[in-house]
Amino acid sequence: MPETPHRSHQSALRSLLGIELPIVQAPMAGSQGSALAAAVSNAGGLGSLPCAMLGLDALRQELSALQRQTTRPYNVNFFCHQPPVPDVAREAAWRQRLAPYHAEIGLDPEAPSGGAARVPFGPEAAAVLETFRPPVVSFHFGLPAPELVQRVRAWGAKVLSSATTVDEARWLEAHGVDAVIAQGLEAGGHRGMFLSTDLATQAGTMALVPQIVRAVKVPVIAAGGIASPQAVAAAMALGATGVQVGTAFLLCPEATTSPIHRTALKSRESQTTALTNVFTGRPARGIVNRLIRELGPMSEAAPAFPLATGAVAALRVKAEGMGSGDFSPLWAGQNTTGCREVSAAQMTQHLAEGVKAH
Amino acid sequence: MPETPHRSHQSALRSLLGIELPIVQAPMAGSQGSALAAAVSNAGGLGSLPCAMLGLDALRQELSALQRQTTRPYNVNFFCHQPPVPDVAREAAWRQRLAPYHAEIGLDPEAPSGGAARVPFGPEAAAVLETFRPPVVSFHFGLPAPELVQRVRAWGAKVLSSATTVDEARWLEAHGVDAVIAQGLEAGGHRGMFLSTDLATQAGTMALVPQIVRAVKVPVIAAGGIASPQAVAAAMALGATGVQVGTAFLLCPEATTSPIHRTALKSRESQTTALTNVFTGRPARGIVNRLIRELGPMSEAAPAFPLATGAVAALRVKAEGMGSGDFSPLWAGQNTTGCREVSAAQMTQHLAEGVKAH
Repeated sequence: MPETPHRSHQSALRSLLGIELPIVQAPMAGSQGSALAAAVSNAGGLGSLPCAMLGLDALRQELSALQRQTTRPYNVNFFCHQPPVPDVAREAAWRQRLAPYHAEIGLDPEAPSGGAARVPFGPEAAAVLETFRPPVVSFHFGLPAPELVQRVRAWGAKVLSSATTVDEARWLEAHGVDAVIAQGLEAGGHRGMFLSTDLATQAGTMALVPQIVRAVKVPVIAAGGIASPQAVAAAMALGATGVQVGTAFLLCPEATTSPIHRTALKSRESQTTALTNVFTGRPARGIVNRLIRELGPMSEAAPAFPLATGAVAALRVKAEGMGSGDFSPLWAGQNTTGCREVSAAQMTQHLAEGVKAH
Repeated sequence: MPETPHRSHQSALRSLLGIELPIVQAPMAGSQGSALAAAVSNAGGLGSLPCAMLGLDALRQELSALQRQTTRPYNVNFFCHQPPVPDVAREAAWRQRLAPYHAEIGLDPEAPSGGAARVPFGPEAAAVLETFRPPVVSFHFGLPAPELVQRVRAWGAKVLSSATTVDEARWLEAHGVDAVIAQGLEAGGHRGMFLSTDLATQAGTMALVPQIVRAVKVPVIAAGGIASPQAVAAAMALGATGVQVGTAFLLCPEATTSPIHRTALKSRESQTTALTNVFTGRPARGIVNRLIRELGPMSEAAPAFPLATGAVAALRVKAEGMGSGDFSPLWAGQNTTGCREVSAAQMTQHLAEGVKAH
């Protein structure tokens, strides 16, 4: 029986990335490292190492660890936002806004701000990558400068990035990505949006994926709300050639999801998520908690990404020490019912049943 | 070959409603009447007559017209919101807010307010229905009082209602609906939400449908962003037994969609929709236009549903007369690329290809 165009299109992603199963594990900075990525890659999917919050030494260590743990293709993910111009007044106002929480919890609001820096992909990280030559590199918030993309391509890496609109998908294709991740509104964590800051442009997976599939020729990977084999089959029916799944992996033992985050994911509260900028300055989806409820979900006062992070970080650490997730970013997509305390390999294989079903 | 539970579940909706194709045309008050409903029913789907803005005479006329045009099953849809307690101060403040637009356009802001009333389903409408005995009755915003549901059931009508959360789906099942419409966040028009007013509880179709399918035993009809046979197949893969589609029918000749609304649907602007309460007081999805941009999308000032409508209605009529859609509710879902200027029968059959594909 001749293959339908659909099915051959589907296998295109697998041959492009050299993977058995078209299941991409979404990079989740702060909730996982090389262990989860390696487990997914070893199971036949594409594991992803989130590098946005890693310094150069940590990047080297994690890449070494990953290469020790798997010989299969894997992905490394970087942010490529424009670094903000610091705005002292705005940041002071934000600290002021957070000061009552500092007082409540017994922290000095004037203490130096903490939190892992989020540095956009640059020549230093590219130099580290050159020694490891990862087979796939994905970006969030668009793409870095063309010469940096070129450096990555030089060792044969495939380049992916997220589109949250048809315009972004077309832009990414025109700038040479090998595949587009269509990030539906259901997705947890940061919206990859980069051509617009208007949340009204952001569509759900069911609406977004078919529009992007029609708009570009490169393979499309569907993301957002995909948490079961049925949803994988649905994404394939929409014309995606693979899926990117994050939330469903958060309870796997290989993830480094904090105990507070795990508890929240297993609770009824996880049914209510929102896009919020109060943790980092950019809209990202997380379980609604006290900080989101009281300052957000979207706050005009939050400094530009990633500067909002600093003043929240100390609060978060102190509160978590007291067993509270009031100030923690509890990133999650809109369907946490797929989260299981099973190995990442089992989760990968479970999701992949949807590929066969389709 | 034994039928899979999935497929038998699927045919359950068709036998429940007596339809050939599990395609429900979404009721769209203001954009269609009996002609569209009859055309869809005659094509084998389930046409819907939106009755929320019809007085009793108009209701009788439309039901007569529908019964003249089709002998197949059809659906009549009613709102069942709690009528608001009028709040004179709030409504005056809203008029004040809109006064500059009245001035700009040459209208007296103190002129009596217009706009079709939206009366919840009550005994009078039930009495009209008793003479027509429609085979399916659907509700939006929950269900009417149990005795009214009983009256509808008395002639054998099947009862449907929309759920926007798992809690609402469970509530509807417990209150005896025959099937649940799972309304994903992509859907155009009014959110059917009735247990919560918190928009953070509202999930995209990809996330919502499988959770509702798991939570209830009655058939689930997926709605929101479904605008192609591929999306129909995807909804079926998620476990839905049918789909409800609105936006894709808006350009059909049988729809009464206004010329301004049609133009907007065909324009690039239709890529950007938002949930807004500025037209009616309740969140509903429409193409972002001037009123949404300047007062919304969600406004604390908007009076309770449907009282926000009055002060906007005159603006809308006058502006439309001048060729402007600045003050018109341009209801649309998040995927307008499925809109086609084809007959409703062709659209129904086109969408139904996704059922076979699945």
